Amino acid sequence: MKVYLAGPDVFLPNAKEVLGRKAELARAAGFTPIVPGDSLVKAYESKRDWGLAISAVDEAMMLESAMIIANLTPFRGVSADVGTVFELGFMCALGRHAYGYSNTATGFYQRTVAHYEGEIITRPDGHLAGPDGLSVEDFDLGDNLMLDGGIISRGGTFIRRDVPADELLTSTLAFEEVLAIAAKNHL
Amino acid sequence: MKVYLAGPDVFLPNAKEVLGRKAELARAAGFTPIVPGDSLVKAYESKRDWGLAISAVDEAMMLESAMIIANLTPFRGVSADVGTVFELGFMCALGRHAYGYSNTATGFYQRTVAHYEGEIITRPDGHLAGPDGLSVEDFDLGDNLMLDGGIISRGGTFIRRDVPADELLTSTLAFEEVLAIAAKNHL
Repeated sequence: MKVYLAGPDVFLPNAKEVLGRKAELARAAGFTPIVPGDSLVKAYESKRDWGLAISAVDEAMMLESAMIIANLTPFRGVSADVGTVFELGFMCALGRHAYGYSNTATGFYQRTVAHYEGEIITRPDGHLAGPDGLSVEDFDLGDNLMLDGGIISRGGTFIRRDVPADELLTSTLAFEEVLAIAAKNHL
Repeated sequence: MKVYLAGPDVFLPNAKEVLGRKAELARAAGFTPIVPGDSLVKAYESKRDWGLAISAVDEAMMLESAMIIANLTPFRGVSADVGTVFELGFMCALGRHAYGYSNTATGFYQRTVAHYEGEIITRPDGHLAGPDGLSVEDFDLGDNLMLDGGIISRGGTFIRRDVPADELLTSTLAFEEVLAIAAKNHL
């Protein structure tokens, strides 16, 4: 069974090594790992065409995969990397198996509160919000409800585990846990 | 033609008014607007079940829509709201018409550079990166390449326009522009 390993891992200086380690673990669990092809696409003359070509390669890789395991560790903000989230939504719509993991156990609500440095208000309409008036999701979930909902409603699992701060984007702890669950469920 | 109006608009204190205005504009353009049903779902006893119920309602609304127009204005960080991005990926996978708009003309590369306060390095592998070593996408696009690629490869348009700072999440300028293009292409 082909599994697409989505995540912001592609942005790491040691992306090849980290994704290589995850691919090996996926293979050891009985899957055929498919790793985003960003580095396979050679430079185009136009930056824009280059970016769009990478998107096309990654979409094609997803189409041939039966499952996505998405690294939903917060990336440059309170939420997961948007490229990974696009891919999660894509695979959910196709009805493929969907799993996620995050290298922080802290929930979405708590992370959003931290984003606002604890300054949370209750709006006249009863919603909790930041000082900017934007409502804060308080649903005991790992990220925006579409992400958790997409995974859980398809029988998948979203694992969140704390790892050492300097391994936030490189640890394979949560990945290995969700990989074992996915293997048990589908292999 | 039913069009799903995705966006972080749902988090605004005046969400109903802003989404109402966009729905009216969509109707005037000849579409049947479908607005995320977050406010339609009554509170459940468990917060988690409540969040998952909203996700299910929004997925069902997308399934009955022929098009998504996604508000990809940066939300609490350098990129679009992840809930909206999940929905964009979802609709792209279904082969529905996909359009996007952002209330900032500033590109993704420039926004990421600003996130790093201008401290951009060139890594040994030739990639531009932040001081944390994470590579910075430099593809002349509006957001992560999966978002732009998903829209553009399906014949859609991603419009980016600057609006007054205090209307960043309420302006309908870019929305009206992309709506007119979508109407011309499909109605």
